[in-house]
Amino acid sequence: MLRTGIPTLGPATCPTPLAYGRFIDGDSQTCIRLGPDDIEEFEAEADVAFERAGPRAKLFFEPSGVRAAIVTCGGLCPGLNDVIHAIVMECHHNYKVKETLGVRFGLQGFLPRYGHPMVELTPAYVSTIHNTGGTVLGTSRGPQPVTEIVDALLAREINMLFVIGGEGTMKAAMKISDEVHKRRERIAVIGVPKTIDNDINLVTSSFGFDTAVEKAAEAIRSAHTEAISVRNGIGLVKLMGREAGFIAAQATLALKEVNYVLVPEAAFALHGDNGLLASLEARLKARDHAVIVVAEGAGQNLLSEVDEFDASGNRKLGDIAGLLMKEIGGYLKKREIPHSFKYIDPSYLIRSVPANANDRVYCGFLGQFAVHAAMAGKTEMVVSRLYDHYVHLPLPLVTQRSKKLNLASACWQSVLECTGQHHILIPKACG
Amino acid sequence: MLRTGIPTLGPATCPTPLAYGRFIDGDSQTCIRLGPDDIEEFEAEADVAFERAGPRAKLFFEPSGVRAAIVTCGGLCPGLNDVIHAIVMECHHNYKVKETLGVRFGLQGFLPRYGHPMVELTPAYVSTIHNTGGTVLGTSRGPQPVTEIVDALLAREINMLFVIGGEGTMKAAMKISDEVHKRRERIAVIGVPKTIDNDINLVTSSFGFDTAVEKAAEAIRSAHTEAISVRNGIGLVKLMGREAGFIAAQATLALKEVNYVLVPEAAFALHGDNGLLASLEARLKARDHAVIVVAEGAGQNLLSEVDEFDASGNRKLGDIAGLLMKEIGGYLKKREIPHSFKYIDPSYLIRSVPANANDRVYCGFLGQFAVHAAMAGKTEMVVSRLYDHYVHLPLPLVTQRSKKLNLASACWQSVLECTGQHHILIPKACG
Amino acid sequence: MLRTGIPTLGPATCPTPLAYGRFIDGDSQTCIRLGPDDIEEFEAEADVAFERAGPRAKLFFEPSGVRAAIVTCGGLCPGLNDVIHAIVMECHHNYKVKETLGVRFGLQGFLPRYGHPMVELTPAYVSTIHNTGGTVLGTSRGPQPVTEIVDALLAREINMLFVIGGEGTMKAAMKISDEVHKRRERIAVIGVPKTIDNDINLVTSSFGFDTAVEKAAEAIRSAHTEAISVRNGIGLVKLMGREAGFIAAQATLALKEVNYVLVPEAAFALHGDNGLLASLEARLKARDHAVIVVAEGAGQNLLSEVDEFDASGNRKLGDIAGLLMKEIGGYLKKREIPHSFKYIDPSYLIRSVPANANDRVYCGFLGQFAVHAAMAGKTEMVVSRLYDHYVHLPLPLVTQRSKKLNLASACWQSVLECTGQHHILIPKACG
Amino acid sequence: MLRTGIPTLGPATCPTPLAYGRFIDGDSQTCIRLGPDDIEEFEAEADVAFERAGPRAKLFFEPSGVRAAIVTCGGLCPGLNDVIHAIVMECHHNYKVKETLGVRFGLQGFLPRYGHPMVELTPAYVSTIHNTGGTVLGTSRGPQPVTEIVDALLAREINMLFVIGGEGTMKAAMKISDEVHKRRERIAVIGVPKTIDNDINLVTSSFGFDTAVEKAAEAIRSAHTEAISVRNGIGLVKLMGREAGFIAAQATLALKEVNYVLVPEAAFALHGDNGLLASLEARLKARDHAVIVVAEGAGQNLLSEVDEFDASGNRKLGDIAGLLMKEIGGYLKKREIPHSFKYIDPSYLIRSVPANANDRVYCGFLGQFAVHAAMAGKTEMVVSRLYDHYVHLPLPLVTQRSKKLNLASACWQSVLECTGQHHILIPKACG
Repeated sequence: MLRTGIPTLGPATCPTPLAYGRFIDGDSQTCIRLGPDDIEEFEAEADVAFERAGPRAKLFFEPSGVRAAIVTCGGLCPGLNDVIHAIVMECHHNYKVKETLGVRFGLQGFLPRYGHPMVELTPAYVSTIHNTGGTVLGTSRGPQPVTEIVDALLAREINMLFVIGGEGTMKAAMKISDEVHKRRERIAVIGVPKTIDNDINLVTSSFGFDTAVEKAAEAIRSAHTEAISVRNGIGLVKLMGREAGFIAAQATLALKEVNYVLVPEAAFALHGDNGLLASLEARLKARDHAVIVVAEGAGQNLLSEVDEFDASGNRKLGDIAGLLMKEIGGYLKKREIPHSFKYIDPSYLIRSVPANANDRVYCGFLGQFAVHAAMAGKTEMVVSRLYDHYVHLPLPLVTQRSKKLNLASACWQSVLECTGQHHILIPKACG
Repeated sequence: MLRTGIPTLGPATCPTPLAYGRFIDGDSQTCIRLGPDDIEEFEAEADVAFERAGPRAKLFFEPSGVRAAIVTCGGLCPGLNDVIHAIVMECHHNYKVKETLGVRFGLQGFLPRYGHPMVELTPAYVSTIHNTGGTVLGTSRGPQPVTEIVDALLAREINMLFVIGGEGTMKAAMKISDEVHKRRERIAVIGVPKTIDNDINLVTSSFGFDTAVEKAAEAIRSAHTEAISVRNGIGLVKLMGREAGFIAAQATLALKEVNYVLVPEAAFALHGDNGLLASLEARLKARDHAVIVVAEGAGQNLLSEVDEFDASGNRKLGDIAGLLMKEIGGYLKKREIPHSFKYIDPSYLIRSVPANANDRVYCGFLGQFAVHAAMAGKTEMVVSRLYDHYVHLPLPLVTQRSKKLNLASACWQSVLECTGQHHILIPKACG
Repeated sequence: MLRTGIPTLGPATCPTPLAYGRFIDGDSQTCIRLGPDDIEEFEAEADVAFERAGPRAKLFFEPSGVRAAIVTCGGLCPGLNDVIHAIVMECHHNYKVKETLGVRFGLQGFLPRYGHPMVELTPAYVSTIHNTGGTVLGTSRGPQPVTEIVDALLAREINMLFVIGGEGTMKAAMKISDEVHKRRERIAVIGVPKTIDNDINLVTSSFGFDTAVEKAAEAIRSAHTEAISVRNGIGLVKLMGREAGFIAAQATLALKEVNYVLVPEAAFALHGDNGLLASLEARLKARDHAVIVVAEGAGQNLLSEVDEFDASGNRKLGDIAGLLMKEIGGYLKKREIPHSFKYIDPSYLIRSVPANANDRVYCGFLGQFAVHAAMAGKTEMVVSRLYDHYVHLPLPLVTQRSKKLNLASACWQSVLECTGQHHILIPKACG
Repeated sequence: MLRTGIPTLGPATCPTPLAYGRFIDGDSQTCIRLGPDDIEEFEAEADVAFERAGPRAKLFFEPSGVRAAIVTCGGLCPGLNDVIHAIVMECHHNYKVKETLGVRFGLQGFLPRYGHPMVELTPAYVSTIHNTGGTVLGTSRGPQPVTEIVDALLAREINMLFVIGGEGTMKAAMKISDEVHKRRERIAVIGVPKTIDNDINLVTSSFGFDTAVEKAAEAIRSAHTEAISVRNGIGLVKLMGREAGFIAAQATLALKEVNYVLVPEAAFALHGDNGLLASLEARLKARDHAVIVVAEGAGQNLLSEVDEFDASGNRKLGDIAGLLMKEIGGYLKKREIPHSFKYIDPSYLIRSVPANANDRVYCGFLGQFAVHAAMAGKTEMVVSRLYDHYVHLPLPLVTQRSKKLNLASACWQSVLECTGQHHILIPKACG
């Protein structure tokens, strides 16, 4: 069985101030039977042992000497404020650390030239932030010079840094940790991976995903209501999902009114007898309306590649929703089938809402476990919930690849059963 | 004092089956002091008498001989199903009419060539429809031949027609009534005016408007959350409002995070010292973020006229949101002010939701009063709530002009106080 | 026509800093045709002139010398924080007063012995309070010595006091104003009447009422779901309404699943052929389930009087819901009709929620108009929305009596039409 | 490793009509590392193999000959209609069975003497039922004669029975299956375990639990708002949880405003230095308010046992909320500490709501997998999600014992960290 280890800053010798509970022995590992979605890194090996998250009886840091910092990066995702809230509360109430600082507007906040001083995060400061979406710290996209970031950490005498962000941010955290290591400094760098697309490797369900699905299902409900209210109404909902169709698939299962779910993982035919156009025509003839859900990264093979990149370094996606409306509109017009499009793009209405109860609980655990790990001197790792276990993952594991919908999974099979769309999908070539 | 009369199909002689309550004498009028927003038709006269809505002790129609029909037209609006529910329940439970029919997909449903037979609307059929948005009958846009519509009414032996729709639909109702009159038939034509823009003349607040404001405020909240989460974040929300900015103004008052509200009634400058661009730049410098709400019909003077029309005959509007993003983006880029746009267009997410409690109560009254009026033989009229009074309005009054935001009203003054935007508005020339 | 005047502290001579908008001339009155619900004070006279609310071009107070204070009293009601928010924002941004203070925990906050110093209310302090229910200032019940309150006002050099509370609180405001007058001091005392029961005289719909109805309708929906899920299920919902059944009636109209609405204004029979028990038995036989909504103050004639009073001086009500469960349970048991009660008392779940959009807009106006009035030197008055007009009401008018459901109104008639319950109601004796 | 087998009605030989997807080989088992909460039955053995849920390539039943039936029993729980919806849709669309019947009002619906004929469940019948809470089939409590139930199944030629209900209902399903077996009939009996308390053995999280937590958190929010709005406000929320405190614990983690969570699993002291009363007094002195969440089955040791049982055979619980109010009220009165109780019992408001998106997805899988299992001839089993795996559990395993909060779990530790209440808990005696 493969074991995954986590680097530490040094031996844990300081007794914890936590007065109760079950402590996790420092290196205790839990064996997880990885599923088909996770297995690639581990090839033949299905059972992998991960370090268990949780409070340690012995700490590396003496709490009264700890100054922690939190930074949030990238696009909004429900639950950011809950993770911040949990880290601050755990640091303050349970470990009684000296100070917790908030870095403003992402990695920019480390650099004096942006002019955003860090803020002191007290329990009073964070007491009601979970009632609103977004991040009270602000965020930004894109990298910043790592040496300057570490300079800033040292200048403020920060011992532990909590980095909340997506894949690019986790790579930046890795670089920060490398630089800290190179300078032989003792700063724990702990990641809390964030992605509304739910495409983080070895994270079963990322925080905010459940809330996003709830809101996405509302948008589908609206599309369905609009579609059935007119003859040949076509509700088209574009959802987040650059490289993975998790939100599209899950929201479809939550509101079973969807006829086509187009995701990046499953290529589909547009033209021909088994194409979307012909299938849609048949659907309209049979039932007078249709609902299509499309992940933003679906059908990119049908579009010419865009040579632009956003501030986070992601290639800009081709406009699949625009293509669909043009192609479908042209096809139906040629066939003289009157129809009516209702296009819904709920992106920011999903990203910006407060977390629901389920995600609030989850974010609370992520924040608490991140603090427990840092106090014990763990570094270069992220906190993850993997099949109902909270574990520590080495940072490189997380950034190595992104997770994708498993087309052989029960989830996708259920999507096919609900929609009946399997005939328009192009089977993957072997090899 | 001006009095407004309502045509009747003939003398009311049949006793009502309603066993209780306070009956309204057939011609009883209530005097309403019209406000500055309503007064144009009545020029110098501020006090106008309108026929009071409510049950009559004497009916024109013998209930057991009544076959009613309901049709819904135009875009979706919260509350359509509630009005249908109320009409059906009132016809069935309280008047015990023979039958209530539902016309499918708007005026198309009258014409056999569209192939949508009418449905029988029973209490069981409508019992849960108010839990979902849209219209259970379906809808369509645009006119249909009036003679064929009246042929269909006669063929089905329909005595009373309830027409729920916007300005174009009310004009169609007028034509139907004229044709009925010309043929000397006895069919009551009653309108229930519907517009999500709230721009119907002499209707203080149209049904669904309150729900729309509630949802629009949620969109503004998202825009605000996105805007404050990044440096120089600009949240831009486009709301309904072709010729009137009621939703934009009211939603702004509901969520006081808006810095600019652009409506069709108030021209604004884009360039120059008192223009939106310079003002926005100053706002970003002072506060790091801004929220702009724009009604779809605002700033049309800044756009070249579009020579296209939709199925309802409305001229297609120029894309003011696109113009704003282009102009603001170019301006800030030239000044080297990094910024981030978050554009939200919640249109169908607003139109398609079920009505809130307030609108459900309101729609219940509209449906009940429409039936009371029809049973008494009233025709060529609409039911309206005018300053807390339910009254009958002659159809021509309603279609004569549309209502606009009164820029001298307390509502608009409060918008100016909340936003502080008065300096970018261009005063109206006298004349 | 009767005219109602408002006392002023002295002539308004200071120019307003408000730079735009339509100013109301100081004594300008608007004539309102009072309805049958409001008319008692004014006997034969239906047209009454009330002073119009709104900004005045001339002020009594020089803004830079103004120290305002806000106090909230009595039970929670949605919108309290919105009124506070609006007063603070208007004082600060538009009039630029010196300071706005918040009095903690109701009238107790004036008295040093309770140990709750006043807080300074800045825009930052109130910027997000409308996202949560309750009152950020805290509240308490019951009177406090008026002389000590005025001493506190003078000690803190407060020029204007905004009092938000119910009938008892408005009486206290009156006494405070009297004491101020007696001492020849210049302190404006402005009331913003609050009651979740909506029973304030000459206030068409009190703030928070719309939100309360929305939540009450949810409770009725739950009761209905529970009732129809079992054989002979009886859903019983107790709603607020000590002396007036507005919430019960309005929530019934919002969710038309109610079979009996019991309110204080309409006595009902329990026993006998036309009693609730026999009617309910017939209902269960016909339809297998029933939903009963009871206002807490209904059916007190069936209960022996309770000789206890709460801190606000209100007599404690007899337990009508308990009585109904006992009587109905006993009756059905004797008749061997198996049944199942589901009792829901949503009181605090209604009172404590944030205001909905409609109430937020309304509270914004109330707060703004209260400040406009105080700045102009008005005193001993409350701000009210009366039939879509915002007006100033003399304090004594408001405390004189409480408003009750008009059993001859369209609202109650509609309740009877929806429920079909008129046969169990006992007609009021004449005289 | 222990293996758990599932009985089958006979060999699966009929090819499935499902045209796509990954089929599960009939006896394929998945190994699950059970956690400390599940392990009791399996003592030393932590790894247990369970049969995997999912579609089988070979069926026992020829679909066109299948008549399925669904029955729902016990109290309401969010998601019942979603499970019904999923079973009907899977039977109809994917397997194209002959007929799916709905049994009305629980087990009573099998017995002709109750007079509730079964209903035919078509896709149209169930198409919108997931929009409302409750169960469209109705429910009842308590056992019915098993022989008569099996007689009814045979009379209607039912081949598969889906039983949705709690522990008592699962026991009844076991008895039905035994009787079927005794008569050598071929009827698959499949359970879908339902409990809002989340206390089913080997079901990680029962359906509806997530929705219940969401609503319970709203009630806690209200209690907190009420508590902080007055001096020494005490918000007391009673939540479901007869023998397990899952909802109370999880809702506390979702809304971290709770100071005491009282659950059946953790005894607490009322009196004495480490008792709730003294602790609460200290809390009020320090912070002026407190929120207490109590599961209905908590603190039963403090109450004398009640010798009454409900229709389901559960012993009636003592009134712990009433005891707390009495004891706390008396204690604080004696100490002359003025205070104010706000008691919230949201029970039916939680049980009766529609499922949220997460639970809708979950219920969809439960329904689909139940049908897959039955079609393959599996019987005497339930469908369960166990640590992210969908598996078949032998019926006896489920009814053997109920699940309880693990006081050594991260969840409970997190509750202690959030509330700081560990000092009032009485450590369990070893033994």
